[in-house]
Amino acid sequence: MDAKEFREFGKAAIDYIADYLENIRDDDVLPNVEPGYLLDLLPTEMPEEPEAWKDVLGDISRVIKPGLTHWQSPHMHAYYPTSTSYPSIVGEMLASGFGVIGFSWICSPACTELEVVVMDWLAKFLKLPAHFQHASDGPGGGVIQGSASEAVLVAVLAAREQAVANYRESHPELSESEVRGRLVAYSSDQSNSCIEKAGVLAAMPIRLLPAGEDFVLRGDTLRGAIEEDVAAGRIPVICVATLGTTGTCAYDDIESLSAVCEEFKVWLHVDAAYAGGAFALEECSDLRKGLDRVDSLNFNLHKFMLVNFDCSAMWLRDANKVVDSFNVDRIYLKHKHEGQSQIPDFRHWQIPLGRRFRALKVWITFRTLGAEGLRNHVRKHIELAKQFEQLVLKDSRFELVAPRALGLVCFRPKGDNEITTQLLQRLMDRKKIYMVKAEHAGRQFLRFVVCGMDTKASDIDFAWQEIESQLTDLQAEQSLVARKSGNVGDLAQHFQIHLSTENATHEKSQ
Amino acid sequence: MDAKEFREFGKAAIDYIADYLENIRDDDVLPNVEPGYLLDLLPTEMPEEPEAWKDVLGDISRVIKPGLTHWQSPHMHAYYPTSTSYPSIVGEMLASGFGVIGFSWICSPACTELEVVVMDWLAKFLKLPAHFQHASDGPGGGVIQGSASEAVLVAVLAAREQAVANYRESHPELSESEVRGRLVAYSSDQSNSCIEKAGVLAAMPIRLLPAGEDFVLRGDTLRGAIEEDVAAGRIPVICVATLGTTGTCAYDDIESLSAVCEEFKVWLHVDAAYAGGAFALEECSDLRKGLDRVDSLNFNLHKFMLVNFDCSAMWLRDANKVVDSFNVDRIYLKHKHEGQSQIPDFRHWQIPLGRRFRALKVWITFRTLGAEGLRNHVRKHIELAKQFEQLVLKDSRFELVAPRALGLVCFRPKGDNEITTQLLQRLMDRKKIYMVKAEHAGRQFLRFVVCGMDTKASDIDFAWQEIESQLTDLQAEQSLVARKSGNVGDLAQHFQIHLSTENATHEKSQ
Repeated sequence: MDAKEFREFGKAAIDYIADYLENIRDDDVLPNVEPGYLLDLLPTEMPEEPEAWKDVLGDISRVIKPGLTHWQSPHMHAYYPTSTSYPSIVGEMLASGFGVIGFSWICSPACTELEVVVMDWLAKFLKLPAHFQHASDGPGGGVIQGSASEAVLVAVLAAREQAVANYRESHPELSESEVRGRLVAYSSDQSNSCIEKAGVLAAMPIRLLPAGEDFVLRGDTLRGAIEEDVAAGRIPVICVATLGTTGTCAYDDIESLSAVCEEFKVWLHVDAAYAGGAFALEECSDLRKGLDRVDSLNFNLHKFMLVNFDCSAMWLRDANKVVDSFNVDRIYLKHKHEGQSQIPDFRHWQIPLGRRFRALKVWITFRTLGAEGLRNHVRKHIELAKQFEQLVLKDSRFELVAPRALGLVCFRPKGDNEITTQLLQRLMDRKKIYMVKAEHAGRQFLRFVVCGMDTKASDIDFAWQEIESQLTDLQAEQSLVARKSGNVGDLAQHFQIHLSTENATHEKSQ
Repeated sequence: MDAKEFREFGKAAIDYIADYLENIRDDDVLPNVEPGYLLDLLPTEMPEEPEAWKDVLGDISRVIKPGLTHWQSPHMHAYYPTSTSYPSIVGEMLASGFGVIGFSWICSPACTELEVVVMDWLAKFLKLPAHFQHASDGPGGGVIQGSASEAVLVAVLAAREQAVANYRESHPELSESEVRGRLVAYSSDQSNSCIEKAGVLAAMPIRLLPAGEDFVLRGDTLRGAIEEDVAAGRIPVICVATLGTTGTCAYDDIESLSAVCEEFKVWLHVDAAYAGGAFALEECSDLRKGLDRVDSLNFNLHKFMLVNFDCSAMWLRDANKVVDSFNVDRIYLKHKHEGQSQIPDFRHWQIPLGRRFRALKVWITFRTLGAEGLRNHVRKHIELAKQFEQLVLKDSRFELVAPRALGLVCFRPKGDNEITTQLLQRLMDRKKIYMVKAEHAGRQFLRFVVCGMDTKASDIDFAWQEIESQLTDLQAEQSLVARKSGNVGDLAQHFQIHLSTENATHEKSQ
């Protein structure tokens, strides 16, 4: 493919993307395919000769698009948002066009330095403590990791190596493997699976401590666990707290946790993958309490900052603790400016050696949307979630499971878990909206998350209409079956509602 | 930014990339900036209001491009190639436009299934043993990781967990931490830094065994180390062999290594990040010897397959060994088709939870270039390296350090290390071509790698002209200094050349 063909193909693809995103409501958010659908459609070997790009673009419509779950659809309400935006798409494309790798400054000075710039921009925008900025005098700074999983793993591994070094210094009688065998870390039973996985990868047990009934992990619980472990001769290493848990967007109590971590010299990392976006809002300033006392934190730009995945910001209070843990340099990686300036070689701040020019899409997105545009995007998600919350509250067949938090509403149809499962299955089968369920203390519930690049109030109404009408239909069907078999009493318990003898109705507030 | 603006911005960016790549020879490969240049040019806070995309694109020319090291330039000869191509750029853009995440099948069936398809296409194209294909009956298959570092780390961590589980079963008297404290892994002292780093991250010592004088690690050396470790009560876990080392593109002897690994039940991983591209060529079939006996291997598509970074293929003979090691599922990740089909949930095959739709750019690149186009690309790099090798051999001031291997020529000006350093420094200061040096047994040398999307014979001549003329100038300068101070004898030793009394000349074959 030569440059002339690229100009044609690329511009056709730009139009393809614009058409796709402008008309994204036309498709069901969930695809109508069965496992293996694509394996049946495609040849089992790559073509020997080149094929025309028009045929390939045609096949994207024919075989790829029907198998997509449309994450950018306003009818996506599962997980948390994974955003994209028009400027970010262009930024990603430009980065792949330049095709540079940024493992050291000389590899592409702009790649490293723009990352320093945008991470400081973001730190200020989110009103983080000043010591997290590269521009500060201290050893702190920010770096773009691929995902929250990687950011958490970097923190866990660096904390582990620091703990081993420190403990061996104070306990020279112990061998390294004896020290490693005693390490222990902490998180909440509400934290994301990637934190437990980080423990597995780090070969260090992570105790998932019980959150309170409000889903919040507090210092008292952590203190109890640490004291127990210290008494048993174990070595506490790190606590990974969460601001905005995956289940219910609960906020761990950073202030009380940080007090305990300081007392026991335990690294405190905060996973703010989702909720970090709200740090920028004055009305959410409570969320930032205690951040001046944490060692590291991460926030996904692909969740709330309209930058496409992958783009996970991570800040370190003392980056040397990571660099010292991971540095394994070779002569071919050295360059003459190394160590002479404040410019970091980011390869030492992350797991892999190679790294894309991700700062470019961040910079382009921030500049073309502006700080006000980014804040408005977060506020819009919050407002839309409030709208949904009100719809839930007005329908007595449903209950909230946790307070609405940012763009997440956790709710369920009243009754046993089975009705939640059945309702979700109906919704999944119809494919109009996509939610997932979560569970706490044996009770299952639905998570309604505001997602999408350009979600509107009418989209929330659409989702609610879909949910409540499907519950109505489900009740009607089960009522019919129950009346036929004479089990109306069981059914009433199942739905926890009043059933008329004529029909399964519901007490719906107006 | 609305869709209309995106169409304009995106198409302007397409033209920008095409212009950049078509005219890439106009710029020096190395940028003319000092550390901190960009920090001085950009504001310290993001703009409050949106800025026009035209201003941003203008700034890319003004402040970003001058700070790029041009990895796609045919005058890039450092590290190994990190390719891009026109179809791959479009593929990356389409993936960011769709903005899907592929951590499970339901998250976007096309994302997972297309990866199964292209990984099998690639396995066949590279003539890998059939058991690495998803389509095979066994538990093998391929996955796209971000980088070779991640692929190696996945292998190291999975091997570690398998070893712990197996050893504890056969030695129930040992505690888990006692077992973990005895683990040991192996690689060559010629292997990439990411392998040593994997050992640090895995908290498992990786012994870097001495390669032979030909830079090759063989089974005998591994056997000696393993027997030593077993005798000392240690538990051998994994050997990471390399096909195409970073220093000299040496090929470890997979056949003898695999025999030892089988005997001692040690996982054998092959890092073929660069050389894997040559598996596709009949004339390089020797390279594939022994691959039927390895447990896992990785190959970077961004090195030889014209797919832009990040895109690192990894194959596993038994993927369950990774899945069983890493699986930490939550209810919100479950979906109804899970475990019912042969379609993998790739989140269990990798470090992070989230994953981009990287298979799309692979598929588009493979289809628009075809198998023959990909093979021709590898062959072209080999031919160009042969051309460079001949130029070195014809100039008696230079010597080869290792046999040319694929697109890499390792050479040096004869004499002490200082002259290699000085020559490289001159070349770096002039910025016309970019090489890095390496070292073996105290001897430093230069690595000349064929890189670039569309490198031609004239580009190789350009590089050689630059190198040999700079050595001429360096000799002339030093000769002048030496004659002034009367140290002509020292100089002759320094360059290991014959110096006339009149001038520093050289014996140059014609």
